[in-house]
Amino acid sequence: MTTLNPQIESKVDVLIIGAGPAGLMCANALAHAGVDVRIIDKRAVGVAAGQADGIQPRTIEVLQSYGLAEPLIRIGAHFPRASFWNPGPNGGIIRTQRTPSIFSETARYPQLITRHQGGIEALFHGSMDAKGLHVQRSTIPTAIVLSKDESELKDPKANPVKVTLKRLDLEEDDIEIVHAKFVLGADGAHSWVRNVLGIKLEGDNTDSIWGVLDVYPETNFPDSRNWTFIHSNHGTLMNIPREGDMMRYYIQLSEDPDFVDPKTGRVNKARANPGRLMETAAKIFQPYHLKMLGEPEWWTIYIIGQRVAQKFSVEDRIFIAGDACHTHSPKAGQGMNASMNDSHNIAWKLAYVLRGWADLSLLKTYESERLKFARDLIDFDRKWSKLFTGKPRTEENQDGISHEEFVGAFQTFSGFSSGVGVRYEPSAIVDKKHQSCATKLVIGERMIPHVFVQAADIRAVNIHDAMPSDTRFKVLVFVGNVTVAATLARVRALADKLDAPGSFLHKYGQGDYHKVFDILCVCAASKDEVDFIDVPQMLRPHWSKVLLDDTDMHAREGGGGFAAYGISPEAGAIVIVRPDGYVGMVAPYEHVEDISAYFGSFMVEKSG
Amino acid sequence: MTTLNPQIESKVDVLIIGAGPAGLMCANALAHAGVDVRIIDKRAVGVAAGQADGIQPRTIEVLQSYGLAEPLIRIGAHFPRASFWNPGPNGGIIRTQRTPSIFSETARYPQLITRHQGGIEALFHGSMDAKGLHVQRSTIPTAIVLSKDESELKDPKANPVKVTLKRLDLEEDDIEIVHAKFVLGADGAHSWVRNVLGIKLEGDNTDSIWGVLDVYPETNFPDSRNWTFIHSNHGTLMNIPREGDMMRYYIQLSEDPDFVDPKTGRVNKARANPGRLMETAAKIFQPYHLKMLGEPEWWTIYIIGQRVAQKFSVEDRIFIAGDACHTHSPKAGQGMNASMNDSHNIAWKLAYVLRGWADLSLLKTYESERLKFARDLIDFDRKWSKLFTGKPRTEENQDGISHEEFVGAFQTFSGFSSGVGVRYEPSAIVDKKHQSCATKLVIGERMIPHVFVQAADIRAVNIHDAMPSDTRFKVLVFVGNVTVAATLARVRALADKLDAPGSFLHKYGQGDYHKVFDILCVCAASKDEVDFIDVPQMLRPHWSKVLLDDTDMHAREGGGGFAAYGISPEAGAIVIVRPDGYVGMVAPYEHVEDISAYFGSFMVEKSG
Repeated sequence: MTTLNPQIESKVDVLIIGAGPAGLMCANALAHAGVDVRIIDKRAVGVAAGQADGIQPRTIEVLQSYGLAEPLIRIGAHFPRASFWNPGPNGGIIRTQRTPSIFSETARYPQLITRHQGGIEALFHGSMDAKGLHVQRSTIPTAIVLSKDESELKDPKANPVKVTLKRLDLEEDDIEIVHAKFVLGADGAHSWVRNVLGIKLEGDNTDSIWGVLDVYPETNFPDSRNWTFIHSNHGTLMNIPREGDMMRYYIQLSEDPDFVDPKTGRVNKARANPGRLMETAAKIFQPYHLKMLGEPEWWTIYIIGQRVAQKFSVEDRIFIAGDACHTHSPKAGQGMNASMNDSHNIAWKLAYVLRGWADLSLLKTYESERLKFARDLIDFDRKWSKLFTGKPRTEENQDGISHEEFVGAFQTFSGFSSGVGVRYEPSAIVDKKHQSCATKLVIGERMIPHVFVQAADIRAVNIHDAMPSDTRFKVLVFVGNVTVAATLARVRALADKLDAPGSFLHKYGQGDYHKVFDILCVCAASKDEVDFIDVPQMLRPHWSKVLLDDTDMHAREGGGGFAAYGISPEAGAIVIVRPDGYVGMVAPYEHVEDISAYFGSFMVEKSG
Repeated sequence: MTTLNPQIESKVDVLIIGAGPAGLMCANALAHAGVDVRIIDKRAVGVAAGQADGIQPRTIEVLQSYGLAEPLIRIGAHFPRASFWNPGPNGGIIRTQRTPSIFSETARYPQLITRHQGGIEALFHGSMDAKGLHVQRSTIPTAIVLSKDESELKDPKANPVKVTLKRLDLEEDDIEIVHAKFVLGADGAHSWVRNVLGIKLEGDNTDSIWGVLDVYPETNFPDSRNWTFIHSNHGTLMNIPREGDMMRYYIQLSEDPDFVDPKTGRVNKARANPGRLMETAAKIFQPYHLKMLGEPEWWTIYIIGQRVAQKFSVEDRIFIAGDACHTHSPKAGQGMNASMNDSHNIAWKLAYVLRGWADLSLLKTYESERLKFARDLIDFDRKWSKLFTGKPRTEENQDGISHEEFVGAFQTFSGFSSGVGVRYEPSAIVDKKHQSCATKLVIGERMIPHVFVQAADIRAVNIHDAMPSDTRFKVLVFVGNVTVAATLARVRALADKLDAPGSFLHKYGQGDYHKVFDILCVCAASKDEVDFIDVPQMLRPHWSKVLLDDTDMHAREGGGGFAAYGISPEAGAIVIVRPDGYVGMVAPYEHVEDISAYFGSFMVEKSG
């Protein structure tokens, strides 16, 4: 097997280092966008088993936009209810309150937890296979050199990043020099890319020590199948239902003197074992009984650390994403969610620049959007971990955390922990000027999912499913009741304006605007009155592209969409949704030229 | 490849002849039930393409109960709206009305149409693969002999059916003698099994000639994506939307003299071709234009025939199912639906008899239930085809079919054409005595789907998904609000009675009643008040088995289940659902002994 090859050189548009969730999300998106991409990983095989991860509602939306969510929803454990327990009068715990797990009203999906990261990775592998892209395993980078030639750095067609790759399973001389246009370092918390570029992490470890284990318990605790937070006089515990009858427990160990060196306050790992973790858990669960059946599926102990990289990019040619950028506590349920959303953010931007559709400057928005997110995430995690780790307020301990404070924070943080509250600040691709046209669609946040019906067949469809991650901008034209002559006249005038030679569609359409812009028309009209052919032809490139804000044939779904978005049916609005699903801008019919200005700030002009 | 083998003999519990939808449904069910089963087919390969088939809501429910529905729902074309067109004042067609496609309020799924029968068959193949069962292809039966020995016929352990099999791809002498306990002939409309057993078909061909073709049309007809019925002065046409932009047209040809021999009234196939069919269609669509883009995907012409076999069974040892039993017009959308539901009906009965759990007499209910269904189906099809084929009522033709008559029949027949209205008559396994305990759950009809929430985690679940086709009887214990002491006391008394040594669970439990009976407990109690552990232990064999008649955490689904079933929360009820999903009986708490009598009529007593 081991052969001595001459050193080879090659070129690639994007080289991704690391095939965890962050790297795979980007690789899959780029492969489906037709981008020349390679992905390498030091591991000889993928993750076959390992720690589970919670998947947030927003992450499921993103996976769904790539057609990958359904297996997860089917296989994952769901826990729609949260439950809060505190010390009772007799020393044992009593239930204080039960609430929904997710308070974000617009979340389309539940939160869930899946068997292991390997399951997520397998989804990407299957999807990449269909495009002929495979992870090159047992391969590491040994050197990375970025050209210092300014003209090269500014030339989108240049390959200014030189990466030396080495096969771990072959002889020493089997190396390859790759000349890449762009490199994404998605190589984990101990990122080689980050280190070699000298990017520092900001933040530190806390003194909060936790054990986590997955077990099949025998217990009479009634809220096992809920997302349960227990603040007891014996410490804090978080109970997460897993697949089948499995349970995950996060157990505070700082309280248990056996695990902690009293002098240093550091964890004494040698004394930890699943039996001891379960003993601690059993004390916390009193007066309910708790026993482990058989062996645990998995366990570990850890100290919470919260760190963010100083920057996510070097010269907009080398980027880092995922755990390479941020590490935080697992209890916030962020884990790989933040990682996948990092690379979902950058993938379409790389595709646009590589196709020559957008200026290199578009890539700056990756760092500006995701670094701010990561800092907010760490802030959130610090506050949440502090509340979580704190002692409960009791008669004796008036300085402790009150239930009201804790559950209040749980609700406040829900937009964050669900992922649907992420908001990007104004930038070249977030223009808040006409926010008043769609008062409830926050520009910079992800498009709100809502069920409409297709005008042609009255099939109910969530607007998210009409907006796949296909790298196109979605141009949602909200029109009123086109069966009213005056409204139709206005809509026809708008269609003419959109179809005029100088409109943004033609100006930035790269010769065939359907490649760049996906037009959908949403009518505030009754299914009994309107036909899909009533809408001007240019607003219905396909029969499925005309939606009605009405209920389905059995009045089970649909309706109320204009109200949910805060769009007036009389005035209408044009909503521009970015390829990653975030609202980029909104404009009234009268200001179509502002949409042109929006695209002009980062797109390259090229008409047909 | 061709070798001369000595004649071999073998034994099998069930031999299925024919691997179309009927045969595969039975083979898959039996394989998952652990039954010794073989399935043969004369075709060398499965159906790779071919005519599409509509799939009814009830068929999707059945497939879902085997875990097979999701790919179909995703891939199939949906058409929730029906549209009716008639001659207008100017001779062209005008729209008269639009209605839902399905009027059965309890239908859980839409009606849909899939690419081809091969897609359905592939689902079964995948599911059977998991159990190591594969279709033995290029194999035909050449002789079938049923023992005349009464004692052998009455011995469920005997193998009284001798079938000679021959491989079509090997030499003449490569035959095998199979001694089977039971044989299912699912070998299609020209069934060899039916013919060799001398079972006659009753019924005849009509003189109604139709063409059908799948095309990509260019048209300005606004209702293309609806299930559209056109009665024009140029004939009748049914328009069914297919996957993507494809359309299926059923076109009446009897009206077109070019296709019909004026003397015999028979179709002149030689003159038919897709272009000619489209010409006829285009005349019917006037004033809308219609043109075929490219070549048709598929086309044929046919004469409607409606026939039913005299009987479906010989000595309850050899059965026929599917097209071998009944042929009818494709326009009723029955097609393979009736076929799969035939063998879904018999599969669990064969499993029970073969396990020694039920008496051979149970198998009589296959013919009694499915022959009656087939006759009703043919009656329905005759009426429907007549209305469909008839000329529209116009000023000039007062004897024609009025729109009101047609759409009225469409609504009346919806329970039938959706498949959810199928009702089995009283028999050993349908006991209507206590119908008044659950006024809206019709005994003999399929259990009504409804969304409840799991008490343990408040996850919404359709009760259908809690009742998979796993061959177990579902014992649904509807209790009231168990947080009320008096109610709980009554429920505890019931649990004690159910768990008493002489109860039906123990009497017919075959040594471990959980193998035979799946117990679910449905409470009329609020999620905020009740814990799943409040229910007596024997009514919750697993935490997922306690359901609440309440909404989910976001009040999006659930609630109203007791009302939908017509069960009083104060009185409660016990509902016995057969393994095939049909309600077998209902009993009040006070008459648990009637449930014993029900099972006593066909089950074999065997306690632990």
